[in-house]
Amino acid sequence: MSTIAPPCNPEADPRVKAVFDDIRRTRGNDFINNLWPHLAFDPALLEEVWSDVKAVMATPGEIDPLTKEMIYVAVSIANACSYCVHSHTAAARAKGMTDGMYAELLRIVSLAGRTNHLANALQLPIDSAFDASADPT
Amino acid sequence: MSTIAPPCNPEADPRVKAVFDDIRRTRGNDFINNLWPHLAFDPALLEEVWSDVKAVMATPGEIDPLTKEMIYVAVSIANACSYCVHSHTAAARAKGMTDGMYAELLRIVSLAGRTNHLANALQLPIDSAFDASADPT
Amino acid sequence: MSTIAPPCNPEADPRVKAVFDDIRRTRGNDFINNLWPHLAFDPALLEEVWSDVKAVMATPGEIDPLTKEMIYVAVSIANACSYCVHSHTAAARAKGMTDGMYAELLRIVSLAGRTNHLANALQLPIDSAFDASADPT
Amino acid sequence: MSTIAPPCNPEADPRVKAVFDDIRRTRGNDFINNLWPHLAFDPALLEEVWSDVKAVMATPGEIDPLTKEMIYVAVSIANACSYCVHSHTAAARAKGMTDGMYAELLRIVSLAGRTNHLANALQLPIDSAFDASADPT
Amino acid sequence: MSTIAPPCNPEADPRVKAVFDDIRRTRGNDFINNLWPHLAFDPALLEEVWSDVKAVMATPGEIDPLTKEMIYVAVSIANACSYCVHSHTAAARAKGMTDGMYAELLRIVSLAGRTNHLANALQLPIDSAFDASADPT
Amino acid sequence: MSTIAPPCNPEADPRVKAVFDDIRRTRGNDFINNLWPHLAFDPALLEEVWSDVKAVMATPGEIDPLTKEMIYVAVSIANACSYCVHSHTAAARAKGMTDGMYAELLRIVSLAGRTNHLANALQLPIDSAFDASADPT
Repeated sequence: MSTIAPPCNPEADPRVKAVFDDIRRTRGNDFINNLWPHLAFDPALLEEVWSDVKAVMATPGEIDPLTKEMIYVAVSIANACSYCVHSHTAAARAKGMTDGMYAELLRIVSLAGRTNHLANALQLPIDSAFDASADPT
Repeated sequence: MSTIAPPCNPEADPRVKAVFDDIRRTRGNDFINNLWPHLAFDPALLEEVWSDVKAVMATPGEIDPLTKEMIYVAVSIANACSYCVHSHTAAARAKGMTDGMYAELLRIVSLAGRTNHLANALQLPIDSAFDASADPT
Repeated sequence: MSTIAPPCNPEADPRVKAVFDDIRRTRGNDFINNLWPHLAFDPALLEEVWSDVKAVMATPGEIDPLTKEMIYVAVSIANACSYCVHSHTAAARAKGMTDGMYAELLRIVSLAGRTNHLANALQLPIDSAFDASADPT
Repeated sequence: MSTIAPPCNPEADPRVKAVFDDIRRTRGNDFINNLWPHLAFDPALLEEVWSDVKAVMATPGEIDPLTKEMIYVAVSIANACSYCVHSHTAAARAKGMTDGMYAELLRIVSLAGRTNHLANALQLPIDSAFDASADPT
Repeated sequence: MSTIAPPCNPEADPRVKAVFDDIRRTRGNDFINNLWPHLAFDPALLEEVWSDVKAVMATPGEIDPLTKEMIYVAVSIANACSYCVHSHTAAARAKGMTDGMYAELLRIVSLAGRTNHLANALQLPIDSAFDASADPT
Repeated sequence: MSTIAPPCNPEADPRVKAVFDDIRRTRGNDFINNLWPHLAFDPALLEEVWSDVKAVMATPGEIDPLTKEMIYVAVSIANACSYCVHSHTAAARAKGMTDGMYAELLRIVSLAGRTNHLANALQLPIDSAFDASADPT
């Protein structure tokens, strides 16, 4: 149950079709996941979101594609975003995440969850050694 | 300003000293950041937390140490844990994170923040293609 | 699946009936959404919550009713409250939110999600220009 | 640095003075913590918030006052509310929380932080045994 | 729908069986809730998580078992962890939480939610009276 | 204390100068708040973030500029983003938010905080009346 009904035939709108075609081309397959038709009620919003996702996730950079997906999963878990946890865990698997890597990702994320709660409880003063602004470039 | 005052001389307690010594040995330097003396009011809790952190972060596994730190930073940002953001960003830098990698980490985390909010707003149905339980091992 | 079963016939309790009647009267229709029967296991709690909701949302003030609902939706998205996102998005629509306004609300909320993550990552110092306490009234 | 400057002499307003007097009387001491003068810019808001806090925290009920404060601290940690963590940890101490109890509170909260992240990662199906609605009263 | 399919017959692995047996023995009944088979894809992770949960929740300490569960529920609500809210609310009931106590728990948690938002909005300065570090032990 | 030191003279880089000039022109004043120099270590990231902020916040749309800022503040409060709460509360004031409107904003946000926690506690089923997908366009 979503808060907006996707258009019955979203690709009837040429702006929507152009985005969907670019998603298929960029990813190299025909699968369009639910996020995109649900954004199609406003083609400009659809274009903006896809443009951002493509720029960050589909452009080669200094962080490899699998690591990118694992970082995305980590943020989505912490933000309790059910849909994003599902979609990016699936994407990480598609990019090569093994069960062993997944178990390790779960260890890191849940340990961070534990120590984030501890540090927020203790209201720790920041060590001066962590002060990047002490060393301007 | 913290919610508990660290003991004046925490290493006077041999259990605390043993943990601090192991932290120094494991990390290969003498720096003990504020988390540890603030946990020293309860040596058992200190031992438990260090044991967990060491097992996950200092044990070689399938995810390399720098990636582990970047995932830790990502979770800490999403949880708004100021102390953990500082300590693990510094740790990631110490393990080789360049400014270019940091910029890319910020891109991924902030994009995830954006789409997490979008997906939670739209209350998207999960695509059946993401259903891992459909394929039991 | 909820953590408490609503009473079979909640309005058999006159305190519950009085609240439900006031909800119907205040809103001008007969629909009682699931929050209220699930609170009816404790009539005092039901009265307190409805009293708060009525005072804030159904009392005319300086912010118009549609804007109030959009702010409510925004908070509920950030807090990952699925039920509240649904109920207040529906309420905003009932008060006149168009698809164009909804798309704009999604833009603002998701942009805030993005920059909230960036600012929490960078641990920015607060500009002194933002210091309201510098200008006591 | 706050987002609103408290009035220079908040108790010059008789509505504010009445609330402050009730806070002092209810708590049995003269300390007015920063929350209250910062709400005094709008006496109606001040009255509403104090009324809610008094009703829940200062009225005897089935949960004892110290447990109430520890639950309050737990929520405040999870919500990363620095001010509330400080004020309610201090209140819990004033009501008898020992260092041993505090260490145990930290264990529970940080363990919950850990398993909350795990369960949100795994997107676990809810066990039917947990379904309260299966047993309507 | 979960992000990993639990093994068909998890107790075929003797490490998994040992953990499951210990869960049944510790809790005094035969029910294994969904968290555990979903962690069984990585027996080491399963062992670590159960070891932590058992140490904190099943070991007698200064906080009684029912209070522990209510604190766990409080954190899980604030973190929007649907599964944990269900499992720990059921556990609290099994340990004696009455409807009256549950209503009071809801009052405290939701009041904390309210004032956490207020304090984060106002960005209140921490009262010096709350400074535990002013009184080192 | 931030996690990255802003460049000493950020506008020495022509890409940075172009963004800063556009910020000044768009806002009609000379104030550059701390977010922007801290992003200047990576000019491409700076350009992307400003481009997004300008498109959403500085482009006329169906939601008026003051309401946009109040929605931004609401999200930032819920996400516990201290910097964003400060910067957007100041922006809302600059666009005409009165103390009365601010008090009302605080009422709505804190009420949403309260009921978000209640609904996440009760794990309420979504009313079918809220199902937008039942009415495809």
